[in-house]
Amino acid sequence: MKTYFDAISKIEYEGPKSENPLAFRHYDKDKLVMGKRLEEHLRFAVCYWHNFCWEGKDIFGLGTGTMNRPWHQPGDEMEMARMKMDAAFDFMAKLGAPYWCWHDYDIAPEGATIKESRNNFAAMLDVAEQKMAETGVKLLWGTANAFSNPRYMCGAATNPNPEVFAYAASQVQNAMAATHRLGGANYVLWGGREGYQNLMNTDLKRESEQLGRFLQMVVEYKHAIGFKGTILLEPKPQEPTKHQYDYDSATVFGFLQRFGLEKEIKVNIEVNHATLAGHSFHHEIATAASLGILGSVDANRGDYQNGWDTDQFPNSVDEMILPCYEIIKAGGFTTGGFNFDTKLRRESIDPDDMFHGHIGAMDTLALAYTKAADLYESGELQKVIENRYSGWNSELGEKILSGGINLKDLSQWAVDNDIDPKPQSGKQEYLENLVNRFIHK
Amino acid sequence: MKTYFDAISKIEYEGPKSENPLAFRHYDKDKLVMGKRLEEHLRFAVCYWHNFCWEGKDIFGLGTGTMNRPWHQPGDEMEMARMKMDAAFDFMAKLGAPYWCWHDYDIAPEGATIKESRNNFAAMLDVAEQKMAETGVKLLWGTANAFSNPRYMCGAATNPNPEVFAYAASQVQNAMAATHRLGGANYVLWGGREGYQNLMNTDLKRESEQLGRFLQMVVEYKHAIGFKGTILLEPKPQEPTKHQYDYDSATVFGFLQRFGLEKEIKVNIEVNHATLAGHSFHHEIATAASLGILGSVDANRGDYQNGWDTDQFPNSVDEMILPCYEIIKAGGFTTGGFNFDTKLRRESIDPDDMFHGHIGAMDTLALAYTKAADLYESGELQKVIENRYSGWNSELGEKILSGGINLKDLSQWAVDNDIDPKPQSGKQEYLENLVNRFIHK
Amino acid sequence: MKTYFDAISKIEYEGPKSENPLAFRHYDKDKLVMGKRLEEHLRFAVCYWHNFCWEGKDIFGLGTGTMNRPWHQPGDEMEMARMKMDAAFDFMAKLGAPYWCWHDYDIAPEGATIKESRNNFAAMLDVAEQKMAETGVKLLWGTANAFSNPRYMCGAATNPNPEVFAYAASQVQNAMAATHRLGGANYVLWGGREGYQNLMNTDLKRESEQLGRFLQMVVEYKHAIGFKGTILLEPKPQEPTKHQYDYDSATVFGFLQRFGLEKEIKVNIEVNHATLAGHSFHHEIATAASLGILGSVDANRGDYQNGWDTDQFPNSVDEMILPCYEIIKAGGFTTGGFNFDTKLRRESIDPDDMFHGHIGAMDTLALAYTKAADLYESGELQKVIENRYSGWNSELGEKILSGGINLKDLSQWAVDNDIDPKPQSGKQEYLENLVNRFIHK
Amino acid sequence: MKTYFDAISKIEYEGPKSENPLAFRHYDKDKLVMGKRLEEHLRFAVCYWHNFCWEGKDIFGLGTGTMNRPWHQPGDEMEMARMKMDAAFDFMAKLGAPYWCWHDYDIAPEGATIKESRNNFAAMLDVAEQKMAETGVKLLWGTANAFSNPRYMCGAATNPNPEVFAYAASQVQNAMAATHRLGGANYVLWGGREGYQNLMNTDLKRESEQLGRFLQMVVEYKHAIGFKGTILLEPKPQEPTKHQYDYDSATVFGFLQRFGLEKEIKVNIEVNHATLAGHSFHHEIATAASLGILGSVDANRGDYQNGWDTDQFPNSVDEMILPCYEIIKAGGFTTGGFNFDTKLRRESIDPDDMFHGHIGAMDTLALAYTKAADLYESGELQKVIENRYSGWNSELGEKILSGGINLKDLSQWAVDNDIDPKPQSGKQEYLENLVNRFIHK
Repeated sequence: MKTYFDAISKIEYEGPKSENPLAFRHYDKDKLVMGKRLEEHLRFAVCYWHNFCWEGKDIFGLGTGTMNRPWHQPGDEMEMARMKMDAAFDFMAKLGAPYWCWHDYDIAPEGATIKESRNNFAAMLDVAEQKMAETGVKLLWGTANAFSNPRYMCGAATNPNPEVFAYAASQVQNAMAATHRLGGANYVLWGGREGYQNLMNTDLKRESEQLGRFLQMVVEYKHAIGFKGTILLEPKPQEPTKHQYDYDSATVFGFLQRFGLEKEIKVNIEVNHATLAGHSFHHEIATAASLGILGSVDANRGDYQNGWDTDQFPNSVDEMILPCYEIIKAGGFTTGGFNFDTKLRRESIDPDDMFHGHIGAMDTLALAYTKAADLYESGELQKVIENRYSGWNSELGEKILSGGINLKDLSQWAVDNDIDPKPQSGKQEYLENLVNRFIHK
Repeated sequence: MKTYFDAISKIEYEGPKSENPLAFRHYDKDKLVMGKRLEEHLRFAVCYWHNFCWEGKDIFGLGTGTMNRPWHQPGDEMEMARMKMDAAFDFMAKLGAPYWCWHDYDIAPEGATIKESRNNFAAMLDVAEQKMAETGVKLLWGTANAFSNPRYMCGAATNPNPEVFAYAASQVQNAMAATHRLGGANYVLWGGREGYQNLMNTDLKRESEQLGRFLQMVVEYKHAIGFKGTILLEPKPQEPTKHQYDYDSATVFGFLQRFGLEKEIKVNIEVNHATLAGHSFHHEIATAASLGILGSVDANRGDYQNGWDTDQFPNSVDEMILPCYEIIKAGGFTTGGFNFDTKLRRESIDPDDMFHGHIGAMDTLALAYTKAADLYESGELQKVIENRYSGWNSELGEKILSGGINLKDLSQWAVDNDIDPKPQSGKQEYLENLVNRFIHK
Repeated sequence: MKTYFDAISKIEYEGPKSENPLAFRHYDKDKLVMGKRLEEHLRFAVCYWHNFCWEGKDIFGLGTGTMNRPWHQPGDEMEMARMKMDAAFDFMAKLGAPYWCWHDYDIAPEGATIKESRNNFAAMLDVAEQKMAETGVKLLWGTANAFSNPRYMCGAATNPNPEVFAYAASQVQNAMAATHRLGGANYVLWGGREGYQNLMNTDLKRESEQLGRFLQMVVEYKHAIGFKGTILLEPKPQEPTKHQYDYDSATVFGFLQRFGLEKEIKVNIEVNHATLAGHSFHHEIATAASLGILGSVDANRGDYQNGWDTDQFPNSVDEMILPCYEIIKAGGFTTGGFNFDTKLRRESIDPDDMFHGHIGAMDTLALAYTKAADLYESGELQKVIENRYSGWNSELGEKILSGGINLKDLSQWAVDNDIDPKPQSGKQEYLENLVNRFIHK
Repeated sequence: MKTYFDAISKIEYEGPKSENPLAFRHYDKDKLVMGKRLEEHLRFAVCYWHNFCWEGKDIFGLGTGTMNRPWHQPGDEMEMARMKMDAAFDFMAKLGAPYWCWHDYDIAPEGATIKESRNNFAAMLDVAEQKMAETGVKLLWGTANAFSNPRYMCGAATNPNPEVFAYAASQVQNAMAATHRLGGANYVLWGGREGYQNLMNTDLKRESEQLGRFLQMVVEYKHAIGFKGTILLEPKPQEPTKHQYDYDSATVFGFLQRFGLEKEIKVNIEVNHATLAGHSFHHEIATAASLGILGSVDANRGDYQNGWDTDQFPNSVDEMILPCYEIIKAGGFTTGGFNFDTKLRRESIDPDDMFHGHIGAMDTLALAYTKAADLYESGELQKVIENRYSGWNSELGEKILSGGINLKDLSQWAVDNDIDPKPQSGKQEYLENLVNRFIHK
């Protein structure tokens, strides 16, 4: 079958000396790292949304897109959806990413009614199931697009109109069932309109209760159908709304606790969403891990000089090594993986550009992960931390943490002993050099 | 007694037509708003820290400060502390703010040992108690400076060394006891070093558990001594640390839940900290109110073009009216108030500049609060919100929220009824004009 | 003729006590301010682009827009363009804004070829000319959309392909001729793609020389056809490009000098572009005025918590009074005016929302401008500045500025006199209160 | 002579396999890169200011610093200055950086009068001259601290008081003479208070003329004394002022042109200042190079999550390779070099921490520069750019740029030929991978 990517052959690993731009230089999927194949560590996924649906319009949304793919032309929508899926699986198979991800309306056109939308979706699921079997590409997660249609402009679960909540429920239920059918490893919810544009017309308390109930229903349904994957929320601070409720990992954790869901739902952290929230990606990963809610990653980065979601391919080992280290320290991915919710630059309009983007991203993460594993196995950072906090293993430290002394007595102890603890160097520059030693061997 | 502010007389309310820069134009403390005197609504407080301790060095911290107050000269530290307190109470009495606030080492010099520090502090508390009696100025809150001394450079409660935790405990216990003695309405904890400079040397999970235990000890002590005021945390996202654990109200709420403290501790929200965290002040107030943890306010604003804490006096009714509206909607302050943790511009070196700053701030808030009360009493915004969400009073809405329908059945209901809810305008521009109608009558 | 805005009547001035949301409360166009009618001071313009062309898609650009105007439906493009123009002039006439603005492809659909585009544009110009005559609405400025079509994705004048430069030249020449024909007061160039996405593929020096030559050609053409209006550049720092060459007013000034154009071209300053560049709007106005290049204003503001161009209606007198003061101090607008390059919130989908947005904006600016004129006429700020710099009228000051003393001699003079100049308070808080006195009389 | 750094030996190059934290792993100063020794390419300099003068107070400026160096203790100021200089030259000699940099009051304490300050400075210059001879350390640049003393709080050259201008002139003249005497390669001016805190009390036009005249005097003096080094301005957008006049390279270029100085003065670009201005460091280097004003570099970086100047040591080859590439493309440094105006983290209080910071920075830049040279010598990026713009070598391209065709004729040509140029991919992802190929060979 001829597809848009016909001119390009399967991407092979050729090693760091290769100058072939259409080969991997670092992603050797069978390489053993800490006793496990890189492919199983990294669990790369290709997203349908930006790669195959985005037309190349920019932030203004006006005019013609630049991408001009064959399936973006006028014509029968279902035929175009099939042409797109042929191209997508051809791309994924050639790239060698083991997983894919989708929104319901990425793979099937939304119809004029719920029923038509469901029929379209069901028909494309058949195609997808067959393609997955043919290519061996597996599903990292599915999700429902409950944000593009104007009905969702003021929220899906948090809409002032409960019928919109019900509409979203019908999409999410259907997308969860489809994810289950396709053997998906996770189900994701991104609350793209679950936020506000202004507080004048917004009842914050009520909207959070609507959202809490929605998520409880999602969790109940997961158990009802026997879906064993993880339910993931995807934090983002804003855009398109002025403020999104799932601002960052710490905010999501507070929300989950409030509705008794902190053991049921984890987070899908996006690099670019972390930086838009004023955090480093490293921070978001470390925070989620420390709270026990680290689920999966969208590896697309932002641009530090631009204040919107640019969804660029990761290309810096320096930026990725420490987040990879945290993932390793937390035990590695279980159901999650590295998804590329990445968007080509709008000017990168050739078929091979989509390969360049993914190849560079996969090489970057393969290198970062491998070096992070070296660092982890060396034990050098762990040792610094153990030494640094070793005082807490003392009698004093344990008494404090176990509740064995109250404020007044501890205060009195400090006075009686006239304590004067001396500051110890944090050694940040030493540690930065240590990490660099593992990057540039 | 002669003080630094001798040349200035008591500040009086002269009404909006006054051109006297040393008079209130809008803060008529006895004006009845919603049946209560403005003074009782606003509960203004003057902070000791920036007003009387800051030397006018800037962000570089080098060289001589510009402020050159008499008590910043070389000399006996306790004598200087008394001179400073004379001036401070003279200022507060002349300004007519009903409350003040302090850190322990604002009012008394830190000594060479814990005991010396405690003796200095005890001596100055005697002076303060007498001054409060003489002037009628009350204490909004006290707090402990557990961040300036190098021993705290890597945290107080979150320090890698438990002796530093103990040192902080001794200060906090002592400052809480002092706050109780002086009849303080609240006790504040600002975790200025409870954060990290880098994640390489930091154990996030351990540090959060240390902090959780510290706060539990604080709450237990409060009950033990019978302090009836509110314990307040002050969120700030960063500065001086790269990242502070009490990032914003939502983060603090999640933290409090984790340690079972969400009914015991509230937040003291600072305007400038809100904007540094990427939020509007309005957002932080509304979020805290919706979570039931709104305690008090530090009314000092930032500069939207500068990325650090500038601590400027509030001067925009446009920015303050809706936050005031939220406070009124939430029932108004109970133990909290509007504190000015404000700093004069470093170039504002005259004695009258400190009056100009506070007068402008108090006039701005008096005007904003009065207009917000008008808006609240008109019921116009509430009506918009009630109408907007009225669908949730329907059978469908109540069934969803009460857990009376599961995801599958709701989905099926949507499909069976082929629902197609239409978007309703959010009317943001209309609402902005409505608010402006109350500002510019 | 029936239009989209049929249900709404002409907007009248009803005074500050009016509670009619479809009336002006402050914009009394015939009110005399400093001897001139407000309408002539403010020179309000309605933009075609966001108001009538934007479909209500958001920053993602996917799916259906929310606005759903009749002319956004499928059908004959020229017929839709006429329906849009009927509605637009109906809106402008009812609103009572004296000016409008357009891009070439706002008013006429782009055709399949240059010639077809020109024919469409010529046909719509005839309609526009007639509408202008009927309604009395005048043209503040025209401009060419040399950024939406994919051919411009890598720049117009700065494109690596000189044929794209030529294509842009054909559009700009045609739009300038049209602006001249319609009696436009200015011609604007916004370099939406004159920037870069990355520096790896960009020759900065060459691109700036291309742009310099383009602007010289524009100026030469202006003089050749006898157009008496002002040529305006519109600074913007980024978006959609990573970096735009016309970053801010100071950057544009440097660029104009480099190509000998600083007497020929001025700037059209947008509030939201100023804040995206890290400046206050006040800064950009004051900077342009001090450099002699202040031309016109796009009054649409951003959101301080969002890092992209939100193009909201101005609604804060506090933010607008000092920029208005600078405009008045600079002599007021000559050919320029206040254009609203504003976009409704995507959720504001009713026909009356477009009126609410503009009414609020016009009231805000009318109030800010009137109060700024009061402040200016009081002379209070000017007096502060004159006193502050009065030392420069001394012999020393004049000798320094006139070049009458060199560094060595001035240094020696300072040493010989052992000078020790004392700092003087900058009085910022006093001045903030002074401005507030004029806002809240 | 014993100094603070006694425990540390000379830092040697040990190669990439070394695990010795007190050795260079990449900075082999004698390695030939493009035919020149690395040391001569990079021209590393150690700054006196942050390294030896900063006490380790943080952004709040209160309390005791953490650094606690022997020369920060109470005592005779000149004796302390000499102890500091012993330690500084010991450090520089051990580190092996070939250059140093200073402010006048870094090396000598400011006195009570101009004369006393000059005497102190002269005495310390004698010591410095001898130390330089002994160690072989050369002077990259000198500068005057015309910002710390309260007299400069409202500006030096831009002060409202001409006597402050004269005071600054005396310092700058003296520091220039000293720089000349010590064989300095450049003289730097950083306008730390040449900006504004608010526009209400500021006359922008007057202040820029004062600054223009000051710089003209500096240039005249340079020629008068026969100083052959380069005069450098150091752009910074804000901090400590709300806005600084030397905002960024493009702004400085416009300013220099306005006062006829664009051939006389270049820029000293700081990484952290670039990012605070909303630019990448790469952008600032490329912009300055394209305008012919690239002079020198302060290599200290910021933190992308913090909005103030953190002055951290560079530690990312990914961030530095392309700026190094631009420097190489522009011909490399002439009088300039890489200065480290870096500050240890406030928690890095051990003597060896200062070595770790500098070693990591020098290794990072050595690696980035070497890899950038490889990339440059490969010609791969240049070839992409030459191909991309090759159309401009056509007859059409040359006619346009040479002024051989006007707007009307070019427009007509486009119409007559019905041109329809097609977009060409910008290949960003391909180019990012290409650069990564050179980083991770």
